[in-house]
Amino acid sequence: MDKINRHSNYPYGIIDCDVHPYPADKDAIKAYLSQPWRDRYNGGGRGHYSNPVHGERLDSRPPGGGPGGSDPDFLREQHIKPYGIDHCVLLPRAFCNLHPDPDFATAIAAAYNEWLAETWLGKHNYDGVFKGSITIAHQDPAAAAAEIDKWAGHPHFVQVMTDSGARAPFGQRQYYPIYEACARHGLPFAIHPGTDGMGINIQPSPGYPTHYIEWHTCLPLGFQAHLVSFITEGVFERFPDFRIVLVEGGVAWLPALMWRLDAEYKALRYEVPWLTKRPSEYLRDHVRITSQPLERPDQDSHLLQTLEMMDAKQLLMFASDYPHWDFDSPQFAFPKLPVDLRKRIFSDNARAWYGL
Amino acid sequence: MDKINRHSNYPYGIIDCDVHPYPADKDAIKAYLSQPWRDRYNGGGRGHYSNPVHGERLDSRPPGGGPGGSDPDFLREQHIKPYGIDHCVLLPRAFCNLHPDPDFATAIAAAYNEWLAETWLGKHNYDGVFKGSITIAHQDPAAAAAEIDKWAGHPHFVQVMTDSGARAPFGQRQYYPIYEACARHGLPFAIHPGTDGMGINIQPSPGYPTHYIEWHTCLPLGFQAHLVSFITEGVFERFPDFRIVLVEGGVAWLPALMWRLDAEYKALRYEVPWLTKRPSEYLRDHVRITSQPLERPDQDSHLLQTLEMMDAKQLLMFASDYPHWDFDSPQFAFPKLPVDLRKRIFSDNARAWYGL
Repeated sequence: MDKINRHSNYPYGIIDCDVHPYPADKDAIKAYLSQPWRDRYNGGGRGHYSNPVHGERLDSRPPGGGPGGSDPDFLREQHIKPYGIDHCVLLPRAFCNLHPDPDFATAIAAAYNEWLAETWLGKHNYDGVFKGSITIAHQDPAAAAAEIDKWAGHPHFVQVMTDSGARAPFGQRQYYPIYEACARHGLPFAIHPGTDGMGINIQPSPGYPTHYIEWHTCLPLGFQAHLVSFITEGVFERFPDFRIVLVEGGVAWLPALMWRLDAEYKALRYEVPWLTKRPSEYLRDHVRITSQPLERPDQDSHLLQTLEMMDAKQLLMFASDYPHWDFDSPQFAFPKLPVDLRKRIFSDNARAWYGL
Repeated sequence: MDKINRHSNYPYGIIDCDVHPYPADKDAIKAYLSQPWRDRYNGGGRGHYSNPVHGERLDSRPPGGGPGGSDPDFLREQHIKPYGIDHCVLLPRAFCNLHPDPDFATAIAAAYNEWLAETWLGKHNYDGVFKGSITIAHQDPAAAAAEIDKWAGHPHFVQVMTDSGARAPFGQRQYYPIYEACARHGLPFAIHPGTDGMGINIQPSPGYPTHYIEWHTCLPLGFQAHLVSFITEGVFERFPDFRIVLVEGGVAWLPALMWRLDAEYKALRYEVPWLTKRPSEYLRDHVRITSQPLERPDQDSHLLQTLEMMDAKQLLMFASDYPHWDFDSPQFAFPKLPVDLRKRIFSDNARAWYGL
């Protein structure tokens, strides 16, 4: 037995049974991982369900440095000018609804709003091309409503936004102060994928998915649950001026879901007597859905049929998801469309919804 | 202050701060509830998400008493003979996967199998019209595999079944002993809605739905998550003879989900290198889906287009859900179909899948 460090105060020695060694950085552990784990390992941190390839278009990184989507003028050069885009609706990724502390989450949301107003919607918006989303932390509905009230008069904020990750379906009544504020100011409420099953949020599937591809494929499922909740809870009856936008949650699932919900309503309307019409009839007045990532079946005819089934002419609004990996180009995202349908999807529907 | 019950041992009296009063039966509380709560209140018990109207066709209750579907001969008279049905695939509702104790759950499954073999598949099966499902408790995969081995040789058990309620998506590896046993005996694995969000099972949505209509409308979402899990985890590569049946989980969602998954695979196949073909290509060899409750859009053409998109000719098998409230009649469930498609959906596909 070694006698090093034997102090007279502890003549029998000390065994400490809980001491933590740290690698100097994550690369020290990466060196011991084989592929594909080496690339995927990020040293812990945010952890599960991050894109294993890369989350952004590599060509979207500005020449001056920074991540894709961080330089308004480069975005103009790369995205707005080549496609002749009139407005980009900006949805910052604050991820504030991950946090258990609603005050911290609300502070992050407020910081994102100040930043967006000062930069993209302020000094960088000399041509008025950028329209913004008011980020809110839905964990604290009263604080979220105050944040909406604060920014609603701003000329370039056109909607309120949250991520789809949640602890309760969005039709439930704890959220109503948010919807009341949206309706009061005529601002649509946009739901964007993200934080599902992360932080304090429930994973909306029968247990945790294993891979990013599984998690990401299933993002529309949570969207569908939120939409059914909005409708069956009667949110659109309670707040007749309340409107929502489903962003980046898939498109082609809409007909099947509405057919099912309409059939259920026929048998079970007893349970939701506040509804005054068939569930699917709420869509036209209260719901819009953005196109990216647009499903592309092998046969274009199947997509065109689906667009007709879902009333895309009224409900669908184009989105690219720039600068992300699964970007949809205005040029290639859709097959050839009838001119009127194309005009509505690419421009008219959003102009009407956002008052542009 | 009253002096009743003052014993000499307790000269200062006793205040007991936790005593429970019970109503003699649930009707004592019902008397104080107004409608619709009075009808809905069942005294506690199983609790949430039970059908607020009635769960069975009222005309399915046998004249001799008992619930719908409890009298084989009445079922013959009411259902089999009028429609000219060759075989009914029976799926008992054991609900065993609600229970935290896997031994109890396994015992319930075994009891249901003994009962089914002795009655519906035994003494009441003089014409061989009934084919059965081996109920398993997926909480204990090794015990479930033993139960499958026990019954696999029976001439009338044609598949294994579980409810969709679960604590992990069905593609995950803890379930593999079950799939190995199914593949070994050539028995399809049927998944039926139920117990989602009940007992020990996770509710596969972003928090608990409020109403039965919401919970029931969203049942296909959990099915979709299970299917994506089966495919992305490579279960059909690992067990090439393993086949599944998705029963009563909706139909029309299939095209949209497969389009999305195929697109994700194109970008993210790096993550699931065990897949040797596009995700949707696993369906034809490994997946069948039953028809009830069939979505019925206002326009029949939309349904016919959807059936074509989903390859119904290969994948779809008729089911009625007798004796339940949302029963689909062989006569009225579908619009007019091409003869060959009708023959495949109503008979050929199931004959091939179950070896009938």
